[in-house]
Amino acid sequence: MAASGKTIERLSVYRRLLSMRTFSEEDYVYSHELARMVSGTAAQVRRDLMAIGVTGHSKRGYRIGPLVEEIGTLLDDPEGTRIVLVGAGDLGRAVLGFMKGRSSALTIVGAFDSDPAKAGRVVHGYRCRSMDEIEGVIAAERAQVAILATPADGAQEVCDRLVEAGVRGIVNFAPAPLIVPEAVWVERVDIATALEKVACLIRGVDETTM
Amino acid sequence: MAASGKTIERLSVYRRLLSMRTFSEEDYVYSHELARMVSGTAAQVRRDLMAIGVTGHSKRGYRIGPLVEEIGTLLDDPEGTRIVLVGAGDLGRAVLGFMKGRSSALTIVGAFDSDPAKAGRVVHGYRCRSMDEIEGVIAAERAQVAILATPADGAQEVCDRLVEAGVRGIVNFAPAPLIVPEAVWVERVDIATALEKVACLIRGVDETTM
Repeated sequence: MAASGKTIERLSVYRRLLSMRTFSEEDYVYSHELARMVSGTAAQVRRDLMAIGVTGHSKRGYRIGPLVEEIGTLLDDPEGTRIVLVGAGDLGRAVLGFMKGRSSALTIVGAFDSDPAKAGRVVHGYRCRSMDEIEGVIAAERAQVAILATPADGAQEVCDRLVEAGVRGIVNFAPAPLIVPEAVWVERVDIATALEKVACLIRGVDETTM
Repeated sequence: MAASGKTIERLSVYRRLLSMRTFSEEDYVYSHELARMVSGTAAQVRRDLMAIGVTGHSKRGYRIGPLVEEIGTLLDDPEGTRIVLVGAGDLGRAVLGFMKGRSSALTIVGAFDSDPAKAGRVVHGYRCRSMDEIEGVIAAERAQVAILATPADGAQEVCDRLVEAGVRGIVNFAPAPLIVPEAVWVERVDIATALEKVACLIRGVDETTM
């Protein structure tokens, strides 16, 4: 099945938006309703849903139950995705708080910090561990994804350890580029760039591509 | 000058990467060096720099001093961009810590939280204020940008107040869609979607678009 990174992002958002409302299994949603919620176009929504083989009813739109299920088939690993988090500073704490109690296919299996003073502390229900333990936890828990919430300094070194230990995908909050083998996927979440982009765009620089 | 949102994002990253190294004003950088740092292509880097009117030397590449300056001309408001932050939980604290002491064109002029117990607390050097004060601060400081670091519940209500008070750009960390007038720019920073995307892509779903 071919779905681009951008399509995957939008499907993730559609599902979340649908799950935030109270819908019955028999309810329908129109592509233009989903489009309005993501500031997109109805044609884009229809293309995204067609990419996962979902077609709507000509008059009533998309039945929500099967739509949410089909998005899940694409997004969620049936075995669950096990995640380690590195960096238990403010940002790491925010991510842990965000993940806590979410019923989802994503599970945090370990939180780590290089500061020995943080080892043993419990943050939002997750016990913070020493970096010495990280390879062992990744192997034992078969963790495939890491969240990197460290400062820029040392981020590459942590990244190398994660990849060496078997991690195949990284969500990178550290404001530093990461060099990884081709088989590893890095998704950058860049707070500074988001701010600079907004500050720039409100000054009227042409926005020609989304 | 026409630069797309994606070009602006990459220019922001190029500048940050260049500023992380120690370069003298007379140093040059090749497009393929910048490309490697962002996992992109040299052709893409050259197109991005051409969009802001910067051309390289055929043998030596781009002179770093003028390049950084030219990116700044596009990205930075000469008057500075004044920002309010709403939500002083873990994520808001992380953003404040991140902004603290950065010598940049972006300045936090106020941090706000709906929890009265947080009013008056100092977080990373920023005093947290009551939401009652937000319209006054936005007007007095001529704040144009807001960082929304609240939970999803109530995010739209805060957003409406911000827009009504004159904010024209929002970096939205709240996992909720925001409905805004056309003249307001919202940049979503979506932790859940970043995780779901990585978890999906490492399972071998085709990535056909960046």
